[in-house]
Amino acid sequence: MTLTAQEIEYLAGQRLGRLATVQPDGTLQVSPVGFAWNAETATIDIRGFNMAASRKFRNVADNGRVAFVVDDLPSTSPWRVRCLEIRGHGEAIDGPEEIIRIHPRRVIAFGLGASDADTDPHRLTVHKRDVTV
Amino acid sequence: MTLTAQEIEYLAGQRLGRLATVQPDGTLQVSPVGFAWNAETATIDIRGFNMAASRKFRNVADNGRVAFVVDDLPSTSPWRVRCLEIRGHGEAIDGPEEIIRIHPRRVIAFGLGASDADTDPHRLTVHKRDVTV
Repeated sequence: MTLTAQEIEYLAGQRLGRLATVQPDGTLQVSPVGFAWNAETATIDIRGFNMAASRKFRNVADNGRVAFVVDDLPSTSPWRVRCLEIRGHGEAIDGPEEIIRIHPRRVIAFGLGASDADTDPHRLTVHKRDVTV
Repeated sequence: MTLTAQEIEYLAGQRLGRLATVQPDGTLQVSPVGFAWNAETATIDIRGFNMAASRKFRNVADNGRVAFVVDDLPSTSPWRVRCLEIRGHGEAIDGPEEIIRIHPRRVIAFGLGASDADTDPHRLTVHKRDVTV
């Protein structure tokens, strides 16, 4: 399985992710995006108004390099961050509806589990794994 | 001025930003970070527990390439996103306290102004400018 049931449930409860891409000149870009987990393709699918004309879509078409993160701050006292970062290969799918499709290759998660929620942030367990394809 | 008063005020009201960096092998990374605007140096300063040992700190030390975004969703009906993206040069400062310091080179903002708040998202005005140094 690419993502765990817990990770998919976390994604379903969040509205914005942030997508990092790289321009042909090497400059990084990062921007907020709506997203959905696509269970059929085991990918994160990103749609948006005027997607094909966007810089990020052209970046993905150019080099396929992406990182994506969803996080939130369910508590500030104590300080608690939940985070799911997905690094992988980005595919720029042309229309009728343009999509940036992220194929996960490495997943980094923390704070998502009930046991993680109680954890001292200085001792937070970061879960990291490669996704085999 | 590097950032406008409105942009600085927006940053002051937000708790998490997302920092994109690039690893020596070209893989992108993006993660949530606490941050502060440093008016003296006109930079975004990022601190964190065990910063010097972090992958992002080593990435910045390696190549200085960063993009940083702060955004939020003050309304979902109508859908309204506010966003301030800062691309620039990252400096990895060693020391008693390690800091990633972002020197802005290009600023992209939308939704921050009162007039922007009323705007149809499909007609949203995106403000872009280079920062001269």
